[in-house]
Amino acid sequence: MTPHALDLATALEGDPAAPHRRAHTSDAYWTFIGPFGGSSAATALRAVLEHPSREGDPLALTVNFCAPIASGEFRVAVRLARANRSSQHWLVEFTQGDGAEAVLTASVVTAARRESFSHQFAAMPEIPAWELVPVMPTPSRLSWVSQYEFRFVEGLLALSEAPPDPPRSPRSLLWLRDAPARPLDFVSLAAMSDAFFGRLFQVLGRIPPFGTVSMTTYFHAAADELQRHGSAPLAGLADANVFHRSFGDQTVHLYGAEGRLLATGVQVAYFRA
Amino acid sequence: MTPHALDLATALEGDPAAPHRRAHTSDAYWTFIGPFGGSSAATALRAVLEHPSREGDPLALTVNFCAPIASGEFRVAVRLARANRSSQHWLVEFTQGDGAEAVLTASVVTAARRESFSHQFAAMPEIPAWELVPVMPTPSRLSWVSQYEFRFVEGLLALSEAPPDPPRSPRSLLWLRDAPARPLDFVSLAAMSDAFFGRLFQVLGRIPPFGTVSMTTYFHAAADELQRHGSAPLAGLADANVFHRSFGDQTVHLYGAEGRLLATGVQVAYFRA
Repeated sequence: MTPHALDLATALEGDPAAPHRRAHTSDAYWTFIGPFGGSSAATALRAVLEHPSREGDPLALTVNFCAPIASGEFRVAVRLARANRSSQHWLVEFTQGDGAEAVLTASVVTAARRESFSHQFAAMPEIPAWELVPVMPTPSRLSWVSQYEFRFVEGLLALSEAPPDPPRSPRSLLWLRDAPARPLDFVSLAAMSDAFFGRLFQVLGRIPPFGTVSMTTYFHAAADELQRHGSAPLAGLADANVFHRSFGDQTVHLYGAEGRLLATGVQVAYFRA
Repeated sequence: MTPHALDLATALEGDPAAPHRRAHTSDAYWTFIGPFGGSSAATALRAVLEHPSREGDPLALTVNFCAPIASGEFRVAVRLARANRSSQHWLVEFTQGDGAEAVLTASVVTAARRESFSHQFAAMPEIPAWELVPVMPTPSRLSWVSQYEFRFVEGLLALSEAPPDPPRSPRSLLWLRDAPARPLDFVSLAAMSDAFFGRLFQVLGRIPPFGTVSMTTYFHAAADELQRHGSAPLAGLADANVFHRSFGDQTVHLYGAEGRLLATGVQVAYFRA
């Protein structure tokens, strides 16, 4: 069986227990001037998940995109900063070439997800069944877009000649999954938490220079729960609070079967507009 | 002039350019089993802000609370992981005693906040003027609570004998400021982004074992804008999406004068209930 493109894009070489491993950018997950941030985030997470000392499920993932990763190989340093009885704190750093400076840093918290009081306050927005929503055609020059199936219900990016006045809503609601479909796990969920077009693009109706600087994803389900989800699409809700002084934010909710909130994400991005 | 308690609590010793500095926990900002997370976060941020190589304003702050910090001294390692033309990526790590294991790790992104397109989508909730809202009496046994002036409009913590059924809303709306008042800056804003009681406490009407594991704050204003705010209270909106399998989240909005969104925060916390 051929591995899924996401597994090829996030593959690491070298001893999983070593303090340094190697990985490669993927032409299949390429965006404006570097790899799709979601695949970089997923690679950082995978480095932790594959480490033989890792215990528990990922709970929190923060990725700082320090500089564009050049096409080709990069080094992945993985360090367990703290091990507790039921949680671990991991640090990951990507470097490239001869440089000592990081191109990406990340922190990952893993934890035992024991049964407890359980209550979800966030309600999945009303959304038609995914089979009823047409798939967005993807004639994008950005290869990563073709690695996902997008079915927009609200907030499809629409470019316009004149800037919309007032600015358009940054909110989007859509069904999202890997293309081809792939069973959901933390690697794909991490990548999907970045698989939303820059909110600013739809606000302005154009695509100015833009890049995510930092992103944080919280996982609200355990491994067995993701496994039960299978390869059905997730309902994704993306929005933004503010664009100001060259930076803007994004908030993301990803819902699985029966409206279960599987992950939430935030990010802050640079723009020039 | 006596320094403000927050400045005493977040003070660092040693050469600001050195790779390691020293700091001390503060009895004035103490919570259940360690320092108030907001003061630890603010200390990590201060270590970056005071570094002579630092350029730009803080944009993103992620703090991972790895283990309770014991009362007393701790070491603060500060490293510039990447310097770009208009942004920097910093890593901070607290260690204590003879241990090599971290008690706290943090990442801080700083950036030049240039003029740009500006639009705020998040609207400050309707809230009465702060002078009209009574100050919460603070007979708390947790010292950090006394370092803030809380004026609750909605979602004041109410303990109850029986668990509320259905669970109470995790949402709170309040006016918040340092007590005594202190001019707003990034250090105080970082601390305030953690100055909300565990959302779970009001959901369950009781205080089970609980601790923040990871927290991310985005700053949506530049230094000059915070300075103009002065020492007036901020409107704080705190909420939660989900509690499940021993962990729950929190979202925070902090609004300044004229409803300007100054910071947003998320955190994920452990609980046993």
